[in-house]
Amino acid sequence: MPLGEFELIRRYFAAASCAQGAAGVALGIGDDCALLELAGDEQLAVSTDTLVVGVHFPEQADPFLLGQRALGVSASDLAAMGAAPLGFTLAITLPAADADWLEAFARGLDCMAARCGLRLIGGDTTRGPLSLTLTVFGRLPRGQALTRAGAQVGDLLCVGGALGEAAAALPLVLGQVAADGVHAEALLARYWSPMPQLDLGQALRGRATAALDISDGLLADCGHIAQASAVGLRIELEHLPLSVALREQAGAKALTCALAGGDDYLLAFTLPPAELAPLQQAGWPIQVVGQAVAGSGVQVIDCNGAPFVLSHGGYQHFGPSRD
Amino acid sequence: MPLGEFELIRRYFAAASCAQGAAGVALGIGDDCALLELAGDEQLAVSTDTLVVGVHFPEQADPFLLGQRALGVSASDLAAMGAAPLGFTLAITLPAADADWLEAFARGLDCMAARCGLRLIGGDTTRGPLSLTLTVFGRLPRGQALTRAGAQVGDLLCVGGALGEAAAALPLVLGQVAADGVHAEALLARYWSPMPQLDLGQALRGRATAALDISDGLLADCGHIAQASAVGLRIELEHLPLSVALREQAGAKALTCALAGGDDYLLAFTLPPAELAPLQQAGWPIQVVGQAVAGSGVQVIDCNGAPFVLSHGGYQHFGPSRD
Repeated sequence: MPLGEFELIRRYFAAASCAQGAAGVALGIGDDCALLELAGDEQLAVSTDTLVVGVHFPEQADPFLLGQRALGVSASDLAAMGAAPLGFTLAITLPAADADWLEAFARGLDCMAARCGLRLIGGDTTRGPLSLTLTVFGRLPRGQALTRAGAQVGDLLCVGGALGEAAAALPLVLGQVAADGVHAEALLARYWSPMPQLDLGQALRGRATAALDISDGLLADCGHIAQASAVGLRIELEHLPLSVALREQAGAKALTCALAGGDDYLLAFTLPPAELAPLQQAGWPIQVVGQAVAGSGVQVIDCNGAPFVLSHGGYQHFGPSRD
Repeated sequence: MPLGEFELIRRYFAAASCAQGAAGVALGIGDDCALLELAGDEQLAVSTDTLVVGVHFPEQADPFLLGQRALGVSASDLAAMGAAPLGFTLAITLPAADADWLEAFARGLDCMAARCGLRLIGGDTTRGPLSLTLTVFGRLPRGQALTRAGAQVGDLLCVGGALGEAAAALPLVLGQVAADGVHAEALLARYWSPMPQLDLGQALRGRATAALDISDGLLADCGHIAQASAVGLRIELEHLPLSVALREQAGAKALTCALAGGDDYLLAFTLPPAELAPLQQAGWPIQVVGQAVAGSGVQVIDCNGAPFVLSHGGYQHFGPSRD
């Protein structure tokens, strides 16, 4: 089935959902989290993600790593809004009760929960084909959420670390390439244990003008910021942070991984120039990769200022499509 | 697979989850909702439920009715805590994008959302075997949630309406009996459009000493209150509210439906005797069916005060087991 049909479903439910501004709802479907109004000048950030076996992860996935990754990916949506982590629910559907599998899965989940400061507060266990739905909760002072809208012409386009590593790990995850050596190990860790940038997200409150987490690739996700903010974004090729591990493993595909590779779960955000130095001096791992310009869409330019076009289609996540 | 294995999984995750009293968590796994502490003397009630095709509903289920029922069942957990409805997320996994099915499902969902005062605030759409995970949110003044613990000896045991109608509808739902006549129609409506008693739940705040919603049958659910509250509960057979539709449709099985039939999604709660009259005078549909006594467990007595034992095993929900 083409990806487009599921995109249509999403739009269908988005249209059916309440409009932003409805009583009690500060932000509905369409950003990294929804925001609910609470008493006491507080908002609740909520995000739900489902992972289905054979679509989002292979059946033979290591259950410990799967537990880590499932929660890491969901928690990243809280980071993208600048929310302080609160808790999560887990709805798990299993074909059978395999004690070893569950024990390892729960350890992976616990491990990521401790790293993120999130607590398992509830859930449901049902029988059926393996799938996981995690709903994460965070809190925010009212009006301080980082959304995709708000980037201004002249802002710096920044990311929270080296790009493309999770994409470079995909051939290793799928067993298409043998995972030998220290670089392979580093990349696999990035894929299976994404580290949501929750602290960075909170540090960016009141400073960044727009933000999201990179799940579909820098180009695609910057497209969301550009559209929501009604600006253009220019990415400078020479400033893309590429790790040694990425260059060694991906070789000629390193740039494709960095620009179009998903699953990094680093933050991408826009920052007024004056905000950069204090954040970097405070030790935040911020890399400037471009800027917001008048216009629309996302453009990549090389060191001569000439447009750069990927020779190669977009990134494929695990499985036949991203749905 | 025996039901017990999934019960073990639930216990496993409950043990892995934070203890009640952990910072920010007022109530963890084990009641109808988890409670998160918020600023401003407010708590957030959260509940997650998954429905899997072939386990919780038949593949040929009418999508409009399925949408209604899925949200109604989840919202009932908010009613059971006395929470004011806020919003919900929907994670839907679908094998294919069928526009007619989706349109009808979303209409059913919208219809129940409007009846409950809940807003769709976010979600996820993924490809795979049909399943639905709904997470519902409500708000509560701090410390006013109705939990399963708190019933006192001498309290009245009450329910929010006529019992057993959804169970009596099950043979109609499964096509085992032809659905003819006005009674069949009424029962099917109770099954497919459970009406969560959200207003009653809020009216019981500060009055009821324990509460839950009847999902597994009066006997089984009263067992949860008895255990959590460390009291016994005595149910008086002659006071069970049985509708004409139930008597007509279920015949000799009417009592079994009322005592052991699940899926009613009415509230069951304990009330100090002095609280009853003002609530009934205010028009709340409260039926007294027994009382809390010293001891443990749930006992049913007939009009002579003799113990009554169901001749018949527990209630079966749709499908091979309740998981």
